[in-house]
Amino acid sequence: MGALITSAMEGYGMEVRMEETVTGFETDGGQVTAVVTDQATIPTDLVILGLGVAPNTTLAAQAGIPLGATGAIAVDQRLRTGVEGVWAGGDCVEKFHRVSRRHVRLPLGTHANKEGRTAGINIGGGYATFPGVLGTAVTKICHVEVGRTGLGVAEAHAAGFDPVTAVVDSTTRAGYYPGAKPIRTKLIAERGTGRLLGAQIVGEEGAAKRIDVLSVALWHETPVEELLNIDLSYAPPFSPLWDPVLIAARKAWQAVENDRSHTEP
Amino acid sequence: MGALITSAMEGYGMEVRMEETVTGFETDGGQVTAVVTDQATIPTDLVILGLGVAPNTTLAAQAGIPLGATGAIAVDQRLRTGVEGVWAGGDCVEKFHRVSRRHVRLPLGTHANKEGRTAGINIGGGYATFPGVLGTAVTKICHVEVGRTGLGVAEAHAAGFDPVTAVVDSTTRAGYYPGAKPIRTKLIAERGTGRLLGAQIVGEEGAAKRIDVLSVALWHETPVEELLNIDLSYAPPFSPLWDPVLIAARKAWQAVENDRSHTEP
Repeated sequence: MGALITSAMEGYGMEVRMEETVTGFETDGGQVTAVVTDQATIPTDLVILGLGVAPNTTLAAQAGIPLGATGAIAVDQRLRTGVEGVWAGGDCVEKFHRVSRRHVRLPLGTHANKEGRTAGINIGGGYATFPGVLGTAVTKICHVEVGRTGLGVAEAHAAGFDPVTAVVDSTTRAGYYPGAKPIRTKLIAERGTGRLLGAQIVGEEGAAKRIDVLSVALWHETPVEELLNIDLSYAPPFSPLWDPVLIAARKAWQAVENDRSHTEP
Repeated sequence: MGALITSAMEGYGMEVRMEETVTGFETDGGQVTAVVTDQATIPTDLVILGLGVAPNTTLAAQAGIPLGATGAIAVDQRLRTGVEGVWAGGDCVEKFHRVSRRHVRLPLGTHANKEGRTAGINIGGGYATFPGVLGTAVTKICHVEVGRTGLGVAEAHAAGFDPVTAVVDSTTRAGYYPGAKPIRTKLIAERGTGRLLGAQIVGEEGAAKRIDVLSVALWHETPVEELLNIDLSYAPPFSPLWDPVLIAARKAWQAVENDRSHTEP
């Protein structure tokens, strides 16, 4: 999936350098002039750093509010911290991941907003719980759309699952319909049970938001064998007759079945 | 929802005449010249009839294959007819509707294809069942996209449910993002439990295919209170931070809650 993105970026004249560590910067009079890596010195006018996000929990820690093992603030399902009368939500708190069943740091505005609503209802005397996250996210890199939900293969292994995968290339509309764009769908399922563990989509206009269909399936712990029969919509301007999500589910089911027939003599 | 479609059609110069019955046609030398209704005679060069679809079951009935109460061929979950060694699938067979829990006639290519796969596996000596339908469909009328899944209000009443509804107007991308188009989402939920019963979407580019998210939620009999917290994706090119589906779920939940607080003193 990543190769599709790299290739699109290179198509725009960008150079993508991987497995190379930034060790420092050269400057001239307070102005950056080059990025120094363990392999090269690259002249530059501008540096943009994307280093991930860490929760700022200094104030919470000083106030005696317990942090979780991830380093973010620990909250219960009602967004209460360990200190009476103090609620927390947003990028500073741990999220419960519904697939790995572990607490994670996952800074997404969608989660933060929902947590704000939940905390607000509870602060106002109501009752609401926040049911956890799947890590569903979409982004756009030039004309390439990217979506993901749940666990990737490495994350599935780390969470103790034994994953099988299926990758399907299809189109966002019926192949003959004007404006049909490529869409690649990858499903990650649990070996044996076929339970959906995660999904990724890379494609063009109209591709990425379909990840939400897989998010709802994942939310309900749907096996790929069940998913392949779910009643998704079809008309030529919107998808091939077998929606890419369903084709991917069928291929994932085949992978699970083939595997089963080889291991159960 | 229908008014949005009518208005779009009228915007293209079409005249939409409702509650008016076609009683016949005037012809001149084998060429149609006018449509005659109970209210007017309308000159025309061309007539296109959209009268729905009825299953052609003559051959089946002659062969002694039992039909269901709907008039379509009755099949079991493995697509077997009542006659040994004869399977059936497609527009000629009854479908089990997962929300109304009744058998219906519902001619959609998506169902027919899935049934063909199921019947094929069984004919070939394998084992597969077809789990039923939600009636998910999309279409496009000029620039207007339309999607539906599950039951409408009248269908919900007919199936014995007491429905509440919520309608939300939103945009297909963040409001400020180029290409943001209108999307109206209507949810039908069961009074009391808040269980999702059906959904409709009318909008422009990027609107209708979102019905699939609601199809998967409906498949799993999701209450709107659970739906409003499901982890759907967000980025400005793809949706507002609160996806229109989630806003609609929140509004439907409020309708269910308000109703509950008025009826439970």
